[in-house]
Amino acid sequence: MRDLTAIRIVLVGTTDSGNIGAAARAMKTMGLSDLALVGPREFPSDKATARASGATDVLERALVVDRVEDAIADCNLVLGASARLRAITVPADTPREAADRIASLPGSTRISVLFGREKTGLTNAELDLCQRLIHVPANPEYSSLNLAMAVQVMAYELRQCLLEPAVEVADDVPPATQAAMDGLFEHLERALIHVRYLDPDNPRQLMRRMRRLFHRAEPDADEVNLLRGILTKIERSTPPTHD
Amino acid sequence: MRDLTAIRIVLVGTTDSGNIGAAARAMKTMGLSDLALVGPREFPSDKATARASGATDVLERALVVDRVEDAIADCNLVLGASARLRAITVPADTPREAADRIASLPGSTRISVLFGREKTGLTNAELDLCQRLIHVPANPEYSSLNLAMAVQVMAYELRQCLLEPAVEVADDVPPATQAAMDGLFEHLERALIHVRYLDPDNPRQLMRRMRRLFHRAEPDADEVNLLRGILTKIERSTPPTHD
Repeated sequence: MRDLTAIRIVLVGTTDSGNIGAAARAMKTMGLSDLALVGPREFPSDKATARASGATDVLERALVVDRVEDAIADCNLVLGASARLRAITVPADTPREAADRIASLPGSTRISVLFGREKTGLTNAELDLCQRLIHVPANPEYSSLNLAMAVQVMAYELRQCLLEPAVEVADDVPPATQAAMDGLFEHLERALIHVRYLDPDNPRQLMRRMRRLFHRAEPDADEVNLLRGILTKIERSTPPTHD
Repeated sequence: MRDLTAIRIVLVGTTDSGNIGAAARAMKTMGLSDLALVGPREFPSDKATARASGATDVLERALVVDRVEDAIADCNLVLGASARLRAITVPADTPREAADRIASLPGSTRISVLFGREKTGLTNAELDLCQRLIHVPANPEYSSLNLAMAVQVMAYELRQCLLEPAVEVADDVPPATQAAMDGLFEHLERALIHVRYLDPDNPRQLMRRMRRLFHRAEPDADEVNLLRGILTKIERSTPPTHD
C-alpha cells in the first residue's frame, strides 16, 4: 500500500478550464489529490468548478505557477505524458509500465506527471525536464485522447499498480531532486565549455543529449555529488583556454 | 490481435448528451466504434457532436433504441458497469479482469458493455440482463467516475488486453555492446587518473560506482562515442600530472 497523494499531476498551459475541473475529478476518484497548474488560461473558473463535481477541494488546493520548473523543483522523478513519440528519443512507457516503475521506487520519492496543452502538448524544453515519457497506446487512426481522459487513465493505472501488494523495492535511495539535476547539468555545461568540447556559440544538441543520457540513469543524490566532484577536478586541472 | 469493433458500448438513459459525445471520442481513441444509445434524453445533439471532436462518425452510426433488450439482442455476452456493488450478488470483475475474460473468448463472440444513467446507474431489471458486472476500483471516499471517464477506462483496458502487446519502441537504436561499454569504462578510468580524481593505488569503489551509473543509462553506440569524445578532449586539454 502506497501513498497516492505523493504523486503530483501537473497540467501545463491548459486552454479549456473545463478540462482542469474534469482532471481534478478524475484524480480524486482514484485517490490522487496533488494538482499543479502551470500558466492555465483561466483559473479559477466556474467551468472548472462545475466539471470538478465533488472534487472542488482538489481545485482549491491546486498550486498555480508560471513555470514548469516551479511545479517540479522538489520532485525526484518527472514523467511527461506525450501523445507523439518524438524523433529525439526519450524512453517512453505505457501508463501501466510507468505505474509499475513508480511502484518499485522508495516511498519517499516525490513524483510529478506532466500533461501538456490540449493542441500542442509539451514543448521540447518541457520534455527536456522529464526523465521518461508516458504514451497511452491508442488507435493510430485517431489517437486524440482528451486531456482529462488521459489523466483518468494514468490515475487509474496508478491506483491499480500502487495499491496492489507491495513490490520488492530494488533500492532505498530515491533519485536526486530536479534541482540537484539542474545543478549537475549547469556544472557539466561549464566544464564542457572549459575543456572546449562545447562551443557556447554553437552548442548544437549536446546538452540535450547529455540530459537524456543522465536522466535515464536516474542518479541518486550521492551519485550527483560524485559526478560534480569529478567535474570540479576537471575544471581545476585544466588551464583556462584561450582562442 | 482481435477485433475491437465487435464490442458494443451501450449507454443507457444518458442524461447529459455531452457525455455521449465524450464517450464516442473515448471509444474511438481506443479503436472501438460500435455505440448503442438506449433512451437518451437528447440525441442527436450539438453538445454531443462538440464533445465527440473527431469521433462524430461513431455518433452518426450509433444505434438508438428504446429498450436495453433491443441493443443487446444479438450479443453472446452482456456485461454491466456498476459503480455500486449491489446487495443482490452478480459476479463483479475489475475492468482488467473483464477485458482478460473477453480476450479468452472465441473471436466470433458478440459482446456488449452496458453503462447506466449518470445519477442512478442501471436498474435492477437491466442488471438482470447482465451475465457479469464490471466495477472500476475507486477511492471509497469519492467513487463518482464521470460516465465517459468510465467508458474511457474500460475501452483502454480492452485495447490493452485484446491487442498484441503494443510495440511502442521509442528508441530503435539498441544499447551499446558490452565491448563498447568496456572500452568506455577503460577510457573513463584513464581519464579520471589523468585528472587525478582517481588514485590507482587507492581506487576505492569509484569505477564500480561509475559502471553502475552508466549501465543504468543503457547508452547506445552513438552516446558511448560522444562520451569518449569528451574524455579524449579532457585528456588533451589537461597537462600530464606529476606527483
